[in-house]
Amino acid sequence: MLAAMSHAAASPALLRASSIPAIRAVTDAWRREGRTIGFVPTMGALHRGHGALVAAAARACDRVVASVFVNPTQFGPAEDLSRYPRDLEGDARLLAEHGCHALFTTTPEEMYPPGFATWVTVDGLTEGLCGASRPGHFRGVTTVVAKLLAIVGPTDAYFGEKDRQQLQVLRRLVLDLDLPVRVHGCPTVREPDGLALSSRNAYLAPEERLRARALSQGLRDARAAWSGGLTDPAALAALVRGRLDAAGAAVDYVEVVDLATLRPLPPGAPAGEDTLIAVAARVGATRLIDNHRLGDPFPRATAGEGP
Amino acid sequence: MLAAMSHAAASPALLRASSIPAIRAVTDAWRREGRTIGFVPTMGALHRGHGALVAAAARACDRVVASVFVNPTQFGPAEDLSRYPRDLEGDARLLAEHGCHALFTTTPEEMYPPGFATWVTVDGLTEGLCGASRPGHFRGVTTVVAKLLAIVGPTDAYFGEKDRQQLQVLRRLVLDLDLPVRVHGCPTVREPDGLALSSRNAYLAPEERLRARALSQGLRDARAAWSGGLTDPAALAALVRGRLDAAGAAVDYVEVVDLATLRPLPPGAPAGEDTLIAVAARVGATRLIDNHRLGDPFPRATAGEGP
Repeated sequence: MLAAMSHAAASPALLRASSIPAIRAVTDAWRREGRTIGFVPTMGALHRGHGALVAAAARACDRVVASVFVNPTQFGPAEDLSRYPRDLEGDARLLAEHGCHALFTTTPEEMYPPGFATWVTVDGLTEGLCGASRPGHFRGVTTVVAKLLAIVGPTDAYFGEKDRQQLQVLRRLVLDLDLPVRVHGCPTVREPDGLALSSRNAYLAPEERLRARALSQGLRDARAAWSGGLTDPAALAALVRGRLDAAGAAVDYVEVVDLATLRPLPPGAPAGEDTLIAVAARVGATRLIDNHRLGDPFPRATAGEGP
Repeated sequence: MLAAMSHAAASPALLRASSIPAIRAVTDAWRREGRTIGFVPTMGALHRGHGALVAAAARACDRVVASVFVNPTQFGPAEDLSRYPRDLEGDARLLAEHGCHALFTTTPEEMYPPGFATWVTVDGLTEGLCGASRPGHFRGVTTVVAKLLAIVGPTDAYFGEKDRQQLQVLRRLVLDLDLPVRVHGCPTVREPDGLALSSRNAYLAPEERLRARALSQGLRDARAAWSGGLTDPAALAALVRGRLDAAGAAVDYVEVVDLATLRPLPPGAPAGEDTLIAVAARVGATRLIDNHRLGDPFPRATAGEGP
């Protein structure tokens, strides 16, 4: 408790800006002072994965802004918008502890006022993987991120590799629209047993939580096989599917794709370092995603690794 | 000649920036100095209408940037991209004479590099008028303007009311994407006989140039009738069509719309100050547009007014 308090005492005071003009006033002042500004956009229900993004921003930038906004336009009509977990006070504590200076919150009414009609779309990269199973999702993501970048005006923005397709799409958006911001991807943070941290893990019943290990186990199996010389995409995908099937997880997709295009490898091409294995599966009612770029290290599970 | 030289001598030296990094270096420095920056995006072949935009920016802002870029993505496959008039040295002179500080030029290759995949779209406002007859046009406009605003980073941007639908669409875009820029619309500049200035007027043969007066004559007729008490949208449109038919101009559209929505007035609603009469017609092979908001003054023609 003392340690936590002393940690908190060392952190900057967290400014709270709950409207677009309020956060603009904060970042305008920082820009006038010539500060670099790191930005971490989130939907709240923050976990250590978000903490790692904030910490990376705090190491590299003079000031760090995080936003918490559960963006309705990136949820499909049958998705979990209304029950998406919310814990703003917990979020504020986690942000302060990781070195965040300002928390921007807003409302759907402020972000999408009557008459709102402008959308930012990225073709190609958004078509496969989660784009195929969540129509409209990426249009919501790209539009809200374009808005948030315009509102906050950061020099640097931080996104997790857990949402790898999102990261690649946003890199494309920033490049194509000439936005004056550097995009940084940060490694997925995992539970000791390998499960990728996600706000949606909170939906999992204890028994589902155990079965959810199948995603990272499948990726680890595939990675180990690739390191051992297996480069056939279909065979690598089959290893992941095997884990998911054994755990009774309903596969949405298991795909072996080129990281740059997010498209399946051409026929006969071997999986290489820039090959991504991406998976989405439902455990009970909860849709989970994970991915692994074969050229990256895959962390060893240190606890609870299943058979 | 002496007068022109002394005018030019009083103007700021025109910086030429022929790449994205080059103009960024210029405007970054101005921003660090706390300067306001006015921006006038153009497709070149500049005329006094553009000059008026630059002059308005120069009156209100510390620094003025104009861009000259014939944007391929806003031309349809059967349109006049390849023969669009170009005169960069003439443009540079006009810009300097009106108080412009920097001219940004770029290339399709720099603006749309291989893999380009991001588009900005505005629904609703882009569907009627020129949006109906030029599919894809506004997507090209909104995307390139979003890019140019991100590249130049102005505090203020200036657009002509001659392209009224474009102006309304861009106001919506800036509002919806929270872009930190003020949008200014400037009155249409006209020839003495009423013809709205347009780079495309250069296409007109002498005989066509005379017939082209029908657009502004029709709008003036309608305005005079409205001032006299005629508020029926169909009757106002018929006056404009009458002039176009008499001149042998091929009507693309004549529409009486609400300025805010650009949609036809509801049945039975009278035309009011915020009613816009918008016209597009082909004179020979040249497509011309013009419009008039009934609440604005319509300049009296001082020369060459036809019967």
